[in-house]
Amino acid sequence: MTSKPNSPSTPTCSAAPASYGAVSASNFSPVNLVGIVGDDFPEEHIALFRKRDINLDGLQTVPGKTFRWSGEYMWDMNTRETRSVAFNVFEHFTPDLPAHYKNAGIVLLANIAPDLQHHVLDQVGQPRFVIADTMDLWIDIAKESLTRLVARVNMLILNDGEARQFTGETSLIKAGRAIRDMGPDFVAIKKGEHGCLLFGPENSFFSCPAYPLEDIHDPTGAGDTFAGGLAGYLAAHSPNGTIPFDLLKKAVVHGSVLASYNVEAFSLERLKTVDKSQIDSRYDLFRRIAHFELP
Amino acid sequence: MTSKPNSPSTPTCSAAPASYGAVSASNFSPVNLVGIVGDDFPEEHIALFRKRDINLDGLQTVPGKTFRWSGEYMWDMNTRETRSVAFNVFEHFTPDLPAHYKNAGIVLLANIAPDLQHHVLDQVGQPRFVIADTMDLWIDIAKESLTRLVARVNMLILNDGEARQFTGETSLIKAGRAIRDMGPDFVAIKKGEHGCLLFGPENSFFSCPAYPLEDIHDPTGAGDTFAGGLAGYLAAHSPNGTIPFDLLKKAVVHGSVLASYNVEAFSLERLKTVDKSQIDSRYDLFRRIAHFELP
Repeated sequence: MTSKPNSPSTPTCSAAPASYGAVSASNFSPVNLVGIVGDDFPEEHIALFRKRDINLDGLQTVPGKTFRWSGEYMWDMNTRETRSVAFNVFEHFTPDLPAHYKNAGIVLLANIAPDLQHHVLDQVGQPRFVIADTMDLWIDIAKESLTRLVARVNMLILNDGEARQFTGETSLIKAGRAIRDMGPDFVAIKKGEHGCLLFGPENSFFSCPAYPLEDIHDPTGAGDTFAGGLAGYLAAHSPNGTIPFDLLKKAVVHGSVLASYNVEAFSLERLKTVDKSQIDSRYDLFRRIAHFELP
Repeated sequence: MTSKPNSPSTPTCSAAPASYGAVSASNFSPVNLVGIVGDDFPEEHIALFRKRDINLDGLQTVPGKTFRWSGEYMWDMNTRETRSVAFNVFEHFTPDLPAHYKNAGIVLLANIAPDLQHHVLDQVGQPRFVIADTMDLWIDIAKESLTRLVARVNMLILNDGEARQFTGETSLIKAGRAIRDMGPDFVAIKKGEHGCLLFGPENSFFSCPAYPLEDIHDPTGAGDTFAGGLAGYLAAHSPNGTIPFDLLKKAVVHGSVLASYNVEAFSLERLKTVDKSQIDSRYDLFRRIAHFELP
């Protein structure tokens, strides 16, 4: 979905996640968006994409309804369970990427069917870092395809319940390491109010705190915002192609910063007004929350 | 329970918590122990106390059985529920502190009935910092006394479920702030595999990660070990009496380091062999787990 100007394209798929992911990533880097929406998709979102310099050559608008996920957030706003998914216009979506998307550097395969993630990834030439997001539904109904996808990507993002479901491990530490054994160098396990765990090569490990929110107004899109912010930050800060663990730590914090803003208001309301100084200020707050040895 | 050599006494109460708390604290500071045990109390624990230079003038040994807590740790080893408590010799324990305990600097009121915590605290002259530990049982059966105690101490330690139970708040952020409003400057909410939250004055906040353990062999005493390590570290590093938030952050990390060792083996087995270099090495590991801006 995101990239450096000099490696100009990184696609994402799925419109709903893309709305959050693309806007979040656009704080750091140009974004090329791939997805499909119905004619019910809000015009103001399209206007926001354009304003944020998000390339829409890969976005199709067709008659019908946009993809909708419906589920339940538990009392702690941490845990979600998929109740229903209306694929709608997504059902027969097999996008051909615009030519200028195919040399993407950083690819974010946002949370959609693993088969579709494969289809998008197949079209990208030599990406230097591929991130896949997923959810409980795909572990339930498309585990084989997801497992093959995981082996093709550099990083998998999922939440704690999904990590347990995917691996059968109760311990998140075992689950994170078990997913790494399936292929990706990096695994991020999101834990809602408890922050996020990052697993990397040679037992490298990072525990990112959650921003201390008293109230969550709308958790919708928090995961997509996190993934988008992370991908955008990586695109902007890995010009020579290498992604060391220390850079991924900072990317996870930036994703968490954006997600913490997102849940403060309904829909894209908060995300569309957040600016660089607010991001930097909250990043600094995360530093004070997490660091116990200060210079 | 613990103190600097020049302010030589800080009592604790309750034998079972004290076994872990005192040994943990003794890594940093001399300890004066107060408590009562039955004649079933293991002789090797007494020997360990002596070896660790833990003053036992305040420890009574009487005929009968030692206090026993019995409960259930949930599948995630995070959550405990009290099933039964056998007070045994504790039932009529109203200790008179040895005279040389009464000028304690740092007082740890380990997890026992709030009335008994009051009784001990009444006898200490001018402590510069008082920490109270508690659990679900006291919130259930002695909430009024606990609430009065909380108003008398500088810091309360409890776990996440207990913080929710005590305050009626679902959000741990609201719960931590609500407990601070009851009196103590600092509140530590332990979250097991998710680490620990520290709340302080002027909305100061710290999120301490958990050590990434794959297996927990025995969670018994982890909370007491945490509190003891925290108190011992404070005693050793606050010579001029002030306890700033940054010092408490490090104390929480040292408590977490000790607790992470404790759960690696049964009973006091691991705790009795841990040494300064192991503590320092794991403290450094916590730094690499938590910090995302490295010098």
